[in-house]
Amino acid sequence: MTCGKPADYRYGEHTADVLIQAYGCTLEEAFVNAAVALAEVTYSTSKVEPKHSREVEVEYDDLEGLLFKWIDELLYLFDAEKFAISRKIDLKLEKDGGYRIKAVLYGDIYSQEKHGFTGLIVKAMTFHMMEIRQIGDYWMVQYVVDI
Amino acid sequence: MTCGKPADYRYGEHTADVLIQAYGCTLEEAFVNAAVALAEVTYSTSKVEPKHSREVEVEYDDLEGLLFKWIDELLYLFDAEKFAISRKIDLKLEKDGGYRIKAVLYGDIYSQEKHGFTGLIVKAMTFHMMEIRQIGDYWMVQYVVDI
Repeated sequence: MTCGKPADYRYGEHTADVLIQAYGCTLEEAFVNAAVALAEVTYSTSKVEPKHSREVEVEYDDLEGLLFKWIDELLYLFDAEKFAISRKIDLKLEKDGGYRIKAVLYGDIYSQEKHGFTGLIVKAMTFHMMEIRQIGDYWMVQYVVDI
Repeated sequence: MTCGKPADYRYGEHTADVLIQAYGCTLEEAFVNAAVALAEVTYSTSKVEPKHSREVEVEYDDLEGLLFKWIDELLYLFDAEKFAISRKIDLKLEKDGGYRIKAVLYGDIYSQEKHGFTGLIVKAMTFHMMEIRQIGDYWMVQYVVDI
């Protein structure tokens, strides 16, 4: 049969997201674990040596916006500089009026051979289902990223 | 630091979907290609030998419902019987009042070694963005499945 059909079939862009919950005894630790959890979607942070460092400073009026900018900045570091993070992260969270994170991330230039690859690339941070709260004596930071 | 945190981080279920467009010079051919496109999300139909056959009959008042039941039935065949389809599919579409598909699918019991595995499992058919229409001299069948 012949006709003007463009193909037998084709696929559109698929969409996907993953929900991440990070915990900490302090809010700082929860933000650090949020960064590690993000990286672990794509590679193994325990295989990354803390050879180089990057300073990151983000601020926002509320904690939700601060989390968005923190994760967004880490995505940028990976996308633009292929900077893969190790588990060595120094992070200070300050509150004066709004909130500010001052962090130093230690890591290396990403290498699939050295650091592994899960097959999943995080495309974007979202505000979907975001939650930051204290539960008893610890903090939980919940967010969703598009993959 | 010790506290009651359940873990450093954990992941929730991720959700994902893929949009499929299948084409045919006839509506029957578009439904056949819709089945092949579905299977190709998970394995390679060209590697499946038409060793066994399965008869499938579905009916519904409108074409959209018919497409839903057709794809849903194929998902069931794969989930419940691990029946992988080849490209040999005999399909008749009848209209009397509602619509009816009578099909014979040829294939084999799924084997990852023989038929490949993309890493993607289709979980469910949806009505999301469904579209069935004639464009010039051919038909397009569009649907979204959860993966």
